[in-house]
Amino acid sequence: MSKVLVFGHKNPDTDTITSAIVYAYLKQQIGIDAEAVRLGEVNNETQFALDKFGFEAPRSISSVVGAEQVILVDHNEFQQSADGIEEVQITEVIDHHRIANFQTADPLYYRAEPVGCTATILNKIFKENSIEIPANIAGLMLSAIVSDTLLFKSPTCTEQDIKAGEELASIAGVDIAEYGLAMLKAGADLSDKSLEDLLSLDAKEFQFGEYKSVVAQVNAVDINDVLGRQEELEILLNKNVAENGLDLFFFVVTDILNNDSTAVAIGQVAEAAAKGFGAELVNNRVILPGVVSRKKQIVPVLTDALK
Amino acid sequence: MSKVLVFGHKNPDTDTITSAIVYAYLKQQIGIDAEAVRLGEVNNETQFALDKFGFEAPRSISSVVGAEQVILVDHNEFQQSADGIEEVQITEVIDHHRIANFQTADPLYYRAEPVGCTATILNKIFKENSIEIPANIAGLMLSAIVSDTLLFKSPTCTEQDIKAGEELASIAGVDIAEYGLAMLKAGADLSDKSLEDLLSLDAKEFQFGEYKSVVAQVNAVDINDVLGRQEELEILLNKNVAENGLDLFFFVVTDILNNDSTAVAIGQVAEAAAKGFGAELVNNRVILPGVVSRKKQIVPVLTDALK
Repeated sequence: MSKVLVFGHKNPDTDTITSAIVYAYLKQQIGIDAEAVRLGEVNNETQFALDKFGFEAPRSISSVVGAEQVILVDHNEFQQSADGIEEVQITEVIDHHRIANFQTADPLYYRAEPVGCTATILNKIFKENSIEIPANIAGLMLSAIVSDTLLFKSPTCTEQDIKAGEELASIAGVDIAEYGLAMLKAGADLSDKSLEDLLSLDAKEFQFGEYKSVVAQVNAVDINDVLGRQEELEILLNKNVAENGLDLFFFVVTDILNNDSTAVAIGQVAEAAAKGFGAELVNNRVILPGVVSRKKQIVPVLTDALK
Repeated sequence: MSKVLVFGHKNPDTDTITSAIVYAYLKQQIGIDAEAVRLGEVNNETQFALDKFGFEAPRSISSVVGAEQVILVDHNEFQQSADGIEEVQITEVIDHHRIANFQTADPLYYRAEPVGCTATILNKIFKENSIEIPANIAGLMLSAIVSDTLLFKSPTCTEQDIKAGEELASIAGVDIAEYGLAMLKAGADLSDKSLEDLLSLDAKEFQFGEYKSVVAQVNAVDINDVLGRQEELEILLNKNVAENGLDLFFFVVTDILNNDSTAVAIGQVAEAAAKGFGAELVNNRVILPGVVSRKKQIVPVLTDALK
């Protein structure tokens, strides 16, 4: 049997990259020829984690055509997945997102739990299979949890994520607060990023009712690093909306120190999107106090507002 | 918080009814106010199992409008689920089928495994939660496994189903072969069924290429109980084909003692359907030696033959 490819979503984040590496490792331990791959560039935060624990980034692929079997981690929606995903057999999914635009011809192993991070589920699967977690693998898993929960401060964070994070930090031998903040700051350092980079860094496509939409999110220590360039940003967003036939580009800048966000919304349903949050669109901006989670605080609101 | 409803698919079978009861019980043990309900009549086989282990059939509902949260067992495709399913929050799915025509707005607990029966997965979830399985609940779970795997003889049956079945039989204190055959025979007793009943008892609609089709299946101890009434049956099938614009009605009678089937095929692609099995359509019948599973031995063949 040929190799099983394991990968997360396009525009990969730390959970997606590390969960592919970690789950491929786990499958190898039970005798399955699995290889972690990625669907895009590794961001600064993820690179910081890979360097810290001594891993190379997985091989990059753009399409799965030619593969026979694949395992998806940290996503399920086909538009966020590899090109050609409809043509291959998906044997497993390990995820913590809503399910949409996903289907298979055959029964499969699908494990989704409403927790803050894929790594928290993987931590259980290691236990269920009685496989020991090496220190460097634990370090990657901790990095994913810190990233997805913003150091346990996101509303997506559950007791299970905190418990898993503490267990994994102990195995990895790192101080969570110290390492976690250093990693988040590495990711929030936008100084070497062009606005084009920021647009694609963590952008996900969604279909809200009839409306084709993109919700992008960047973390910042100082949100004015981004919002200070709003005029230039809007030109790019408008271009992207026109070229891709979007009804909405919702660009969220999250302040990782104060745990608030501001979005720049462009597209024919931008006002409706703002209203969904009980807010007004002023200067194409929506102020989102206390909002840090795309999954829990943004996507459900837009799903409802635009249905 | 209001009650969480737990239910399986329309035209319920033994796995669907018992898994709703069993999973509602499990949720109650961990403090969740869950109620099992059903989306249709209880068949003879399921009633036999309920009677044997001292359970009432769950309350019947036709729609979930008004419910807040629901848990699906043994299915996920919305067309097989309750009316109004799009309007409620699905918090969990426990299933063993392919995933299609399913979506949620929020993250959820989704547990699918490629095994023969939902009860086999529930058996794991009891262990993961360290909840003891009472004898009568184990009896229901065993009944589901016997039903879905035709006493371990279906090609959908896995090693995990056999192991779970043996564990559960031991807890329930029943002899698998003796109890299992009695239960299957109760389901295969067609003496109180009209041909109209048989047509709808376990009929599922499929689209094979351009051809709208129905594949129905009944279990029988003596297939002549049904095939002896073929003339009358064909009148009904032809009427159904005409009224519903079908290209194929594939009515399968399965001999549960010898594990063979015979189909009566009506519709413009009936001959092509027979050829898919390497057989000839004679007197509108197709002989299907060794075929017992619609999911694994019939639907894939028709999908290929009629594409």
